[in-house]
Amino acid sequence: MEKELNSHEHSHDHDHSHGHHHHDHNDFTDYKTAVKEYRESFASKKDVMEQAPDPAVREMVKYMDEQGVENCFDRFDKQKPHCTFGLAGVCCSICSLGPCKITERSPRGTCGANADLIVARNLVRAAAGGVAAHGARAREIILTLKKAAEGDVDLPIIGRNKVKAVADMFNLDIKTKSIEELAGEIADILLEDLSRTVPGPHKTLEAVAIPERKRVWEELDLIPVGSYHEVFEALHQTTVGTQGDWRKAMDQFMRLGIAFSMNSVVGGSIASDCLYGVPQRTTVKANLGTLKTDTVNIAIHGHAPQMAMEVIKAGRSEKFIEMAKEAGATGIQFYGICCSGLSTLYRLGGVIPLSNANGSELVLATGALDLWLADIQEVFPGIMEVANCYKTVVVTTNESNRLPGAEHIGYKRDLSDLDKLPQLADRIVTRAIESFKNRRDVKRHIPEHEIEAEVGFNLETLIHRYGSLSTIASALIDGRIKGIINLAGCTNTRIVFEKAIVDIVDILLKNNILVFTNGCASFPMAKLGYCSIKGQEKCGEKLLKFLGPKMPPVWHFGECIDNAHSVAVFREIAKYTGRHMKDLPFAEVTPEWSNEKGVGAALAFRMLGFSSYHCVHAPVHGSQKVKDFLYHGTKELIGSCMNVDTDPAKVAEMIIRDFDEARSNICWRS
Amino acid sequence: MEKELNSHEHSHDHDHSHGHHHHDHNDFTDYKTAVKEYRESFASKKDVMEQAPDPAVREMVKYMDEQGVENCFDRFDKQKPHCTFGLAGVCCSICSLGPCKITERSPRGTCGANADLIVARNLVRAAAGGVAAHGARAREIILTLKKAAEGDVDLPIIGRNKVKAVADMFNLDIKTKSIEELAGEIADILLEDLSRTVPGPHKTLEAVAIPERKRVWEELDLIPVGSYHEVFEALHQTTVGTQGDWRKAMDQFMRLGIAFSMNSVVGGSIASDCLYGVPQRTTVKANLGTLKTDTVNIAIHGHAPQMAMEVIKAGRSEKFIEMAKEAGATGIQFYGICCSGLSTLYRLGGVIPLSNANGSELVLATGALDLWLADIQEVFPGIMEVANCYKTVVVTTNESNRLPGAEHIGYKRDLSDLDKLPQLADRIVTRAIESFKNRRDVKRHIPEHEIEAEVGFNLETLIHRYGSLSTIASALIDGRIKGIINLAGCTNTRIVFEKAIVDIVDILLKNNILVFTNGCASFPMAKLGYCSIKGQEKCGEKLLKFLGPKMPPVWHFGECIDNAHSVAVFREIAKYTGRHMKDLPFAEVTPEWSNEKGVGAALAFRMLGFSSYHCVHAPVHGSQKVKDFLYHGTKELIGSCMNVDTDPAKVAEMIIRDFDEARSNICWRS
Repeated sequence: MEKELNSHEHSHDHDHSHGHHHHDHNDFTDYKTAVKEYRESFASKKDVMEQAPDPAVREMVKYMDEQGVENCFDRFDKQKPHCTFGLAGVCCSICSLGPCKITERSPRGTCGANADLIVARNLVRAAAGGVAAHGARAREIILTLKKAAEGDVDLPIIGRNKVKAVADMFNLDIKTKSIEELAGEIADILLEDLSRTVPGPHKTLEAVAIPERKRVWEELDLIPVGSYHEVFEALHQTTVGTQGDWRKAMDQFMRLGIAFSMNSVVGGSIASDCLYGVPQRTTVKANLGTLKTDTVNIAIHGHAPQMAMEVIKAGRSEKFIEMAKEAGATGIQFYGICCSGLSTLYRLGGVIPLSNANGSELVLATGALDLWLADIQEVFPGIMEVANCYKTVVVTTNESNRLPGAEHIGYKRDLSDLDKLPQLADRIVTRAIESFKNRRDVKRHIPEHEIEAEVGFNLETLIHRYGSLSTIASALIDGRIKGIINLAGCTNTRIVFEKAIVDIVDILLKNNILVFTNGCASFPMAKLGYCSIKGQEKCGEKLLKFLGPKMPPVWHFGECIDNAHSVAVFREIAKYTGRHMKDLPFAEVTPEWSNEKGVGAALAFRMLGFSSYHCVHAPVHGSQKVKDFLYHGTKELIGSCMNVDTDPAKVAEMIIRDFDEARSNICWRS
Repeated sequence: MEKELNSHEHSHDHDHSHGHHHHDHNDFTDYKTAVKEYRESFASKKDVMEQAPDPAVREMVKYMDEQGVENCFDRFDKQKPHCTFGLAGVCCSICSLGPCKITERSPRGTCGANADLIVARNLVRAAAGGVAAHGARAREIILTLKKAAEGDVDLPIIGRNKVKAVADMFNLDIKTKSIEELAGEIADILLEDLSRTVPGPHKTLEAVAIPERKRVWEELDLIPVGSYHEVFEALHQTTVGTQGDWRKAMDQFMRLGIAFSMNSVVGGSIASDCLYGVPQRTTVKANLGTLKTDTVNIAIHGHAPQMAMEVIKAGRSEKFIEMAKEAGATGIQFYGICCSGLSTLYRLGGVIPLSNANGSELVLATGALDLWLADIQEVFPGIMEVANCYKTVVVTTNESNRLPGAEHIGYKRDLSDLDKLPQLADRIVTRAIESFKNRRDVKRHIPEHEIEAEVGFNLETLIHRYGSLSTIASALIDGRIKGIINLAGCTNTRIVFEKAIVDIVDILLKNNILVFTNGCASFPMAKLGYCSIKGQEKCGEKLLKFLGPKMPPVWHFGECIDNAHSVAVFREIAKYTGRHMKDLPFAEVTPEWSNEKGVGAALAFRMLGFSSYHCVHAPVHGSQKVKDFLYHGTKELIGSCMNVDTDPAKVAEMIIRDFDEARSNICWRS
């Protein structure tokens, strides 16, 4: 193994006599042209106004422009030109011997780090941020499950079958123990896997990982101790004067990808499903046209469902519906922004999906929201100024995410008052009704677009639909389905809002590629009809034949940690083909990824053997070695790599080409 | 509490009618002048050649210059002018909606974050890096203690009295249990405190923290769950769209300071002392003049003592001394760089301290080193090119720190082969002897400066010396000692190498201020006579009277985690004065700090109530609010703040002024 991992191609075997030193700068990558070209591809607000695929988006960006209210598209334009060194990944401010940047004139930082090491270290820290973000959310929900199991909070454990299935997977004694006892033991295992420090078996990984993958990871020494440890170790390795070998840093990067998957996603998903039940298939209206002017309108924004679930329950109670009516409303309506919007939608039904984070300011500018409930992650600070303009009350609920100017109605950092959730939820709904009364004079601007979307796909609902996933496997084998992508990831202001997502999907559907989606990228799919029968008009003939009259071509799996559900489906399909997932025409596609969780998610899929496809570059232009490793080199190690082109059509072509090649490799017709 | 912590002075209570939006940019801090001025104060290599206080340093920098061999001073110069945005702290590349930078034209990042939030988030991540770095080192030594206690590795537990004292502190059953059993239980407690995820009592903190401090921390809700968790949460809070309130981010910053102290430093220090014994007072030669040309010379560089201890033991065995003689050497000599050099010195004696990280390239350029043993942290990648020039074999020993071009003889990532340390150590010493033979032709350049230094001060050795620390407390009360500083921290190329440290100490000693020192800053003290009787010539009369004929004025406590020992001494002195530490003339002084551990260490002392003093600015010029909070505002919360001036004389003045004020506040004569 040592040999395969060798990064010392350019080893410094200087044999010159002392006193004459040859500077070895042949590892400098001239990134200027690449960055300049890349930067020129960046979208502008004008582009968004003209080219965004969602007409409601185009209308709202224009409206905000007329009103003189700023949003992320304005701020992105004002940041131009973006820093060359930052885009190339060659900027380092990890210690204060700098800040340093690698240029032809200064090919080393003060400590001696070259571009390869700086680029690699920055990537490691980004992946660590992603593991921590997803992991913090997972931890809260696992702790909530534990409290529910132990009777410390009055929450029913709804996913009883899930508890049994997971308990069985962990070899717990499902015969004699109660659901609550089992749920408590599951929570303890997940917490142990999250926070282990003494090296030892990672129980979730042992239970969940595909044997073929486990072997690959073991051979490369990439099995994580656990998320907490690998994040800690990632910061350690990247502090000044520690990991000096970019290639070893990339090992830590890959290790974080496995931790992301096994702790932060699978752990969080198991706990959510045990506590709240497995997502249900449900149909809902989507997009801004659904916004009513006569209801108390509450937006659910963020990624932690605990408070949101309670608030929705309260808002649907007799008591509060009555209170809303007394205030002059016809009722209380909930709208979803980002993942806590999605996860409450498919569990409680009727939460209308409106937008991901980049569009949150557009939603606020409709003037239609009375209260904006913000928990954690992707709650842009920029929302406050828009909310203030339209008198929308913003309530934060989590100590990890406070916003100056927002009201805070939340539980404590140590979750010791989680049993007070119902009372806190009552206060929040009361505040929403109050706000409704206070803001009748606020001008509304509601674009008329609305559409139906089906959500809540997963292994359970698909087995319910198809009996067995052998149906899908057969269609894959005979070519009715050329391949399947998992479409996820945020959106990014570098790209015309949602356009890369839509453009890629249009080409893939036409080429008979089936689309699973979740998280932020699923919003344009839901808003633009792809998650309904209407989407069939985009499909190629073969795919149409497979779908039949009732299935949409884009299957909406839910929020971002529902990647765990889509992987379960990929895995089940693979089982029926008798092939490893890495050899099948499967792909992770996050065209417009923009944050650290996005780095983690694509990486996690690559570790599972899915190549990933994007229109946004990682900051690797400064190091040809790291770029080659990520964009090609991992292929022979883990069977997958990262593929990037700023042109969505080219990305779609790459996917089709790679799927055809995969099919040809295993002798399937294209 | 909520009120005191309020950060909403500039709350956005826009009451304007909809459609007219006032951009609220009054929170923009114009940092340009401050950064420009600061940057102009940066040292150059020429300054180092002319003004570095250590003549051996001046000589070596000149020599390397003549030889055309690059070192960190060259690279720092080549990085000029340093990035304004990075220095101001207003650069953000946490997500790829950027990179963003705050300027007057673009006062918000794409997400809406302003300079306050960006500056605060960057600080939080730096502190998290420090907690992780020190914490990773602590974890390895705690795991080693555990393995030694459980018989998995053949290492004697030398600090038997320490084990008993700590076991007693943790209320373990010291009467019936063996030292090994107790050591194992101590290790388990320390690991639990490090990695806890379910909120619960922090056992080390409960046992160690001063009640007055614990109350302050509790009132501010700053008690950490543990190092792993707070680092994880720090990354979570600082990922895009999560913590939106700079002031709440600073709470996480402060929480990290406590975790730094209670887990990373105290935990690591307890484990080291239990395993290897409490540091002993010893006298040693220091500086480059000690380098011999007829011995096999091995440098010990880094921060993890496990391998270094074994290598030194092996190198002093009959077998290897004989082997060295057969190779034509008179023996084997060890030299110390950074902390693993220091910690092996005061435990095994005779390891000669030469330099901290910034001077490591100068040491290599003497041509006198046959083997350079590098474990973790502050091992600049830059050393490889110098080592190659002088044929010094670099051996890395830890998976967290590999160097392209170095040889690797180390233990595994999971420490499962730690029982092989003796065999690995034998290989390393053999390699050193081989290298000695291979490099007889390498030119030596050894400056002639050498001097004696006393090291290994701590509570135990001081009680041995004085009987009781009431002696020191009395001198403090009656003014023979005006105050006491803890001098630590790295060095920084922004400052003439070691000059700020020396200049400040010169003024303080003259003003009868006693100096404790450890870590990187202790090197100039050791090399320049301050840690010997010779240092008395710098002292004021009163301090001289206290010291008597046998004590140096700078007391060397050892490596950087020996901060735990200096705090124990401060605490014992405080006890005899009947005052809280925060009210006494005590200070943390890290004049030339440069890395994330340095951020953590000064912060940890501030959390203990010691104000900190520096000649290096934190990257806070971009946010007046964060700057004010750090440089003044924490005073009323925790009784301490950060004090910075680039002029060492002014820093010394500040310390003297603050000590006089502290003395006056408690009615002690100045």
